[in-house]
Amino acid sequence: MRIARFSIDGNVAFGAVEGDKQDELVLDIIKGIPFAEFELSGTKVPLSKVRLLPPVLPSKVVAFGRNYADHAAEMGSRAAEEPFAFFKPSTSVIGSGDVIRYPSFSQELHHEAELAVVIGRMCREVPRERVRDVILGYTCANDVTARDVQRREQQWARAKGFDSSCPLGPWIETDLDPADLTVQCTVNGLQRQLGSTAQMVNPVEDLVVNISAAMTLLPGDVILTGTPAGVGPLQDGDEVAVTIEGIGTLTNKVVKRG
Amino acid sequence: MRIARFSIDGNVAFGAVEGDKQDELVLDIIKGIPFAEFELSGTKVPLSKVRLLPPVLPSKVVAFGRNYADHAAEMGSRAAEEPFAFFKPSTSVIGSGDVIRYPSFSQELHHEAELAVVIGRMCREVPRERVRDVILGYTCANDVTARDVQRREQQWARAKGFDSSCPLGPWIETDLDPADLTVQCTVNGLQRQLGSTAQMVNPVEDLVVNISAAMTLLPGDVILTGTPAGVGPLQDGDEVAVTIEGIGTLTNKVVKRG
Repeated sequence: MRIARFSIDGNVAFGAVEGDKQDELVLDIIKGIPFAEFELSGTKVPLSKVRLLPPVLPSKVVAFGRNYADHAAEMGSRAAEEPFAFFKPSTSVIGSGDVIRYPSFSQELHHEAELAVVIGRMCREVPRERVRDVILGYTCANDVTARDVQRREQQWARAKGFDSSCPLGPWIETDLDPADLTVQCTVNGLQRQLGSTAQMVNPVEDLVVNISAAMTLLPGDVILTGTPAGVGPLQDGDEVAVTIEGIGTLTNKVVKRG
Repeated sequence: MRIARFSIDGNVAFGAVEGDKQDELVLDIIKGIPFAEFELSGTKVPLSKVRLLPPVLPSKVVAFGRNYADHAAEMGSRAAEEPFAFFKPSTSVIGSGDVIRYPSFSQELHHEAELAVVIGRMCREVPRERVRDVILGYTCANDVTARDVQRREQQWARAKGFDSSCPLGPWIETDLDPADLTVQCTVNGLQRQLGSTAQMVNPVEDLVVNISAAMTLLPGDVILTGTPAGVGPLQDGDEVAVTIEGIGTLTNKVVKRG
């Protein structure tokens, strides 16, 4: 099932996305929330009539660094043998169609296309064989990075945590095997990144085991799984799109304030 | 005013702390929340009859590194000329009297006593002269750190973000000048850290300007301002206390699971 979060007439709701053609998708409004038992209401609205919101409002986004060897190499480094993580705050999250604001303190904004894991239930110290049970589904993410600030500052709160630096969407796909999915990023329609989740140094299961050994994960928390090679600059006016096989496309425009 | 958050008979409330003697403190229950206009109800309960909670539930805790030169030196480093920040997640926050759980993945837990700034209103790009307007008050913090993990992992999400790694409390002092306050840490009554906020490389105003240039701060968000020299290990059974002049004492016991 594809679960979207959206606003219509000032109300916020979750809906199941139905249909195959992009222009004809409809939302069957969900009664309740997707983190508990829920039903489809049968009330349907065209996707074109609503504003998509970030599919979840995470209490925290945990992002793993250097989890694709080819990206680590292009950054002049090696892949992380042991996973290491950083946080992006809730205030950095935007949805598909929202604007990435080019921050005033950076001159070098980069895209990083990533598979995002959405946690479905509160959990801690999750054993490897139970990881699938705590995952609600998957969505696309862009770990937007102020690369110049990242180089200057030892920890990445500002470089990767500024407002609008965490586009998520367009929706959550709940029925998906994350083992071998194509991850693609285009800027103004030109391909920049292309990889497969099969290239991850530490796969999804290991990342959930690693971070949940340290901290409680809450429903709606998001784990970013690293980016493949091909990261590069974003400019004022660019349209950046992250497409993941089996999920869909997350699209955002970059706007620099005058 | 000293504002505490507490639970009594299963309800959560804010209260103004009144009195001078530790054994005779009372809470005047607040009608409303301290992030908006509020009144004191006149209904009073002895502090000894309630359980103190973390004085806020922050959406994010932003912590600054190496902001005291003497601590930077003891870590074999220099103070950060430009401030740099990392996050501690909401799931890491505990209150005074709560237990610091020694994490299973570390063998070297350290205390770090810090002045914590509590944000009172939503804000972004705060100019230096408006910083005082967005601050609700100050509390004590312990930036508990798995030092061995911090050395191993390039980013500090696990080393400084594990459950119970962010004790805050005992309450928020709203009437305080943060420019020159004694910051002390004791373990089992023996002094470990002693410094003054006057030693900060970047004072409170600069830190708020720095981080709010990148991201929106929400009411209840917390900024940790760095730790003075004297950090050291915590063992199973230790009682660690952070005392800041003009605020009070944050006390937590360390417990290692068998």
